[in-house]
Amino acid sequence: YYLLEENDIRERLIHRAAFSHKGTFGHAMLVAGAPETMGAALLTSRACLYAGAGLTSACIPATGLTALNASLPEVMAVVRSEQGLPTSVDWEKYQAIGIGPGLGTGPGSLSLLRVVLKNFHKPIVLDADALNLIAHNYELIQQVPEHSVLTPHMKEFDRLFGDHQDWWSRIETGIDRATTLGCTIVLKNRYTIIFTPQGMCLFNPTGTPAMATGGSGDALTGIITSFLAQGYEPHEAAFIGTYVHGAAGERVRGYVATPSQLIDELPLLMKELAD
Amino acid sequence: YYLLEENDIRERLIHRAAFSHKGTFGHAMLVAGAPETMGAALLTSRACLYAGAGLTSACIPATGLTALNASLPEVMAVVRSEQGLPTSVDWEKYQAIGIGPGLGTGPGSLSLLRVVLKNFHKPIVLDADALNLIAHNYELIQQVPEHSVLTPHMKEFDRLFGDHQDWWSRIETGIDRATTLGCTIVLKNRYTIIFTPQGMCLFNPTGTPAMATGGSGDALTGIITSFLAQGYEPHEAAFIGTYVHGAAGERVRGYVATPSQLIDELPLLMKELAD
Amino acid sequence: YYLLEENDIRERLIHRAAFSHKGTFGHAMLVAGAPETMGAALLTSRACLYAGAGLTSACIPATGLTALNASLPEVMAVVRSEQGLPTSVDWEKYQAIGIGPGLGTGPGSLSLLRVVLKNFHKPIVLDADALNLIAHNYELIQQVPEHSVLTPHMKEFDRLFGDHQDWWSRIETGIDRATTLGCTIVLKNRYTIIFTPQGMCLFNPTGTPAMATGGSGDALTGIITSFLAQGYEPHEAAFIGTYVHGAAGERVRGYVATPSQLIDELPLLMKELAD
Amino acid sequence: YYLLEENDIRERLIHRAAFSHKGTFGHAMLVAGAPETMGAALLTSRACLYAGAGLTSACIPATGLTALNASLPEVMAVVRSEQGLPTSVDWEKYQAIGIGPGLGTGPGSLSLLRVVLKNFHKPIVLDADALNLIAHNYELIQQVPEHSVLTPHMKEFDRLFGDHQDWWSRIETGIDRATTLGCTIVLKNRYTIIFTPQGMCLFNPTGTPAMATGGSGDALTGIITSFLAQGYEPHEAAFIGTYVHGAAGERVRGYVATPSQLIDELPLLMKELAD
Repeated sequence: YYLLEENDIRERLIHRAAFSHKGTFGHAMLVAGAPETMGAALLTSRACLYAGAGLTSACIPATGLTALNASLPEVMAVVRSEQGLPTSVDWEKYQAIGIGPGLGTGPGSLSLLRVVLKNFHKPIVLDADALNLIAHNYELIQQVPEHSVLTPHMKEFDRLFGDHQDWWSRIETGIDRATTLGCTIVLKNRYTIIFTPQGMCLFNPTGTPAMATGGSGDALTGIITSFLAQGYEPHEAAFIGTYVHGAAGERVRGYVATPSQLIDELPLLMKELAD
Repeated sequence: YYLLEENDIRERLIHRAAFSHKGTFGHAMLVAGAPETMGAALLTSRACLYAGAGLTSACIPATGLTALNASLPEVMAVVRSEQGLPTSVDWEKYQAIGIGPGLGTGPGSLSLLRVVLKNFHKPIVLDADALNLIAHNYELIQQVPEHSVLTPHMKEFDRLFGDHQDWWSRIETGIDRATTLGCTIVLKNRYTIIFTPQGMCLFNPTGTPAMATGGSGDALTGIITSFLAQGYEPHEAAFIGTYVHGAAGERVRGYVATPSQLIDELPLLMKELAD
Repeated sequence: YYLLEENDIRERLIHRAAFSHKGTFGHAMLVAGAPETMGAALLTSRACLYAGAGLTSACIPATGLTALNASLPEVMAVVRSEQGLPTSVDWEKYQAIGIGPGLGTGPGSLSLLRVVLKNFHKPIVLDADALNLIAHNYELIQQVPEHSVLTPHMKEFDRLFGDHQDWWSRIETGIDRATTLGCTIVLKNRYTIIFTPQGMCLFNPTGTPAMATGGSGDALTGIITSFLAQGYEPHEAAFIGTYVHGAAGERVRGYVATPSQLIDELPLLMKELAD
Repeated sequence: YYLLEENDIRERLIHRAAFSHKGTFGHAMLVAGAPETMGAALLTSRACLYAGAGLTSACIPATGLTALNASLPEVMAVVRSEQGLPTSVDWEKYQAIGIGPGLGTGPGSLSLLRVVLKNFHKPIVLDADALNLIAHNYELIQQVPEHSVLTPHMKEFDRLFGDHQDWWSRIETGIDRATTLGCTIVLKNRYTIIFTPQGMCLFNPTGTPAMATGGSGDALTGIITSFLAQGYEPHEAAFIGTYVHGAAGERVRGYVATPSQLIDELPLLMKELAD
């Protein structure tokens, strides 16, 4: 058991070098949102952008296109058809994919998850409804690329890996599954716990109860996907992402810290940590 | 008669505890807006979010979906059909509903109000057109759940409970109806008066004439609904909500304080009051 | 000839009194925008709101509804049909109308202007394409309600009242037409000139070349309409509106002062002037 | 070889004179965006506006209209048909056109580029997909108006003028093509290189790796187009535009500097440089 500290993040977060260009920082795609929960796609895409990905694309329903353009002009769209699938995607050009926030668990979402798992073989961040879909179609877990990152909260963790009576047994399961699957698992909680494929178990100290509001998790998914796209190892993307997510929330300083406000804090916070 | 003071609010407003999560702070739904008055739904939803609800959903017309997504990604949508009704709602998952701002008083709105009153038995905040609909269909008052909160301004109060010649008679009526109905009544005015089911009558000292602009009341509805969802007793939600609404308006400090500006002040104000 | 000074504005701008409510400050309607120039409607509506009108409505094409909701939730919509006319309007409830910014000069716009002039008999602010339409259908000038305010720039002034070789002759014409028509004329220029029905001619000293960008005039129209709705005499609405428009632009302090930035400065500026 | 310095910009950037009006600063049109990459049109239009053009229009797909209105009310639209062409354009009224960001390289985009090159004979800024289209239809280079500005990054430069093994050969080619074509070429890189028709070669020192994110180039296109519309010589528009683009990015001071944030810095930066 290890407690993440600011110095762990300072050592890992890379100072952006001169002569780097947008290609240096990768192209991330966020597969998220449904007509009534499109905001989740916006929050996760915005988090990805502000955490420094070189390019960010959002795979969204057609009904969300105008909202994406109006609020995030830096983010490109990959529009899904009425059946829920993007028409033609060049999967090679993405360095990382984040999937799940606000996606829904209907048949279209399941088909979409299958398409992503079939076509994309670099690390994926799986969150929210992507985890719920896997929980109900557990054979899919075999298709999750090694080195992926799973970010369940407690209920999603239990849906995925079975009910647990207490946190100690959850920690045991987390260590076991992370090593078995070769994935990093980020178990979201007041003190989020990260399990690495090497069997490490880390506690993240940052965060505040003001972040207990819808969309916080969507932001975390976008941040970790952004670090994956920038070339960090999956467990390092999880360490840095979880730490800065909580630290950014602390900086908001209100009774509630909305995800939008939290995301706005990322660039200056990360600049301070990287310098 | 009692004058609300800052200490009353400080004692009541709960410091957000560690280990709380978004579920701790409830799920609020705002039933508001029509195509030409959709902004009211956005203001009341935004107020609910910034006052700290764990999750916020907005039950809106389909024409308002893109505007909701673009301006409030944290808020989820429940889209109403052309007949004005949401297709399938799991009423159990909401802790509080606010209904009325910009809703209109046509037949679709009446049907929608009936559906809400029939299906939802926890406290409801009734405002604006929801009150006007009840005034014209007064048998509906029997279906308002006990412990609800009514937030009429003077004209809506009179439409609901009959004409009054002066404020003293309005206060008498307010005390009478609040106790009879078992509801909290928030009579909006320069110094807003709150009547509790226990027969208390409180005056709120906060606020400024800069808040005399369209949408201020919509914000108040969202704030009180947010506190209901967070688990406050209805009269306490009314006390705190009315007080912070006015105090937030005072902090804007312009010739006019738009509701959007007022809402932005809520998180820091509430943090100061809760600490 | 008279030069407006800060004290003239301080004397006129009314401190918002306690016990006022949104009705105290009137209901303004802005008739503006077309599909490709919808932004003009948004700028003029936003200016009206921030200058303190109690309620603001925008009469816009259906294609602009989502943009209005997303950017100005405080503003209500009156949607125009494909023929360019609103379906049913209760003209009585508005205290002032501003018409013209981005309206276009096609047949639909002409019909709309005719409908407004036929139905609305309180003061109107006429700007931009409303003035161009009158220039081409000059008999309409007879239907402009007395005490209205016309806000042409130099070219619109000449289109309306004939070509002029120099500013002195324009000033002569301005004095003449203002008294003949019983209207206030605001001739927009680096130092805007205001002609009153009483034959006064005032120069406004505020403003900056950073305001020389599209949409500045739309903001002025919204501001003057807002003051009319709040109950100021038309010439006073023109004095105060022109002065604060320029002074707000000065406060932006950039190489260019966009109308959106200018409008944001209004509430604090007006608060300082009113105190 | 020459290194641009702050004083070069201070000498060139014109203080906005009193008695100027929006016509003084020209009308710029940005031809950019496609349904899935509409954000590029918004960023380049926003940059043009904030760099001081008198009027800014955006030639965009119909699906982007609402997003344009909601986020940039100061910018007028010229909507393209389903075939990708604007229906009726008065080309005379524009002083400069920028074309390319997010345009796509399909047949509709090629037709649109042809229409622009056929009808518009003042300087054009060619960027991104406009350059890619010319690379694949190289006879079009003959129709690029003299005094235009090309803003390729390294890959676009090589697609246009052939592969290069190193930067020295690229510089040789740049000098050669700029003089042959009579155009200014802005070769975007960590230290962007500007080649003038007179055979000059300048290095720009401003910028930061935080700007290595999608949309930075779109902003530069809008800025240079804005200066062309304001009446600067093309090479001077390129000098000033490139310099302030990088300097604005430096002012953002985050780990990543999004184009939206960069653009917001322009007016105050330019004010300081012009004073």
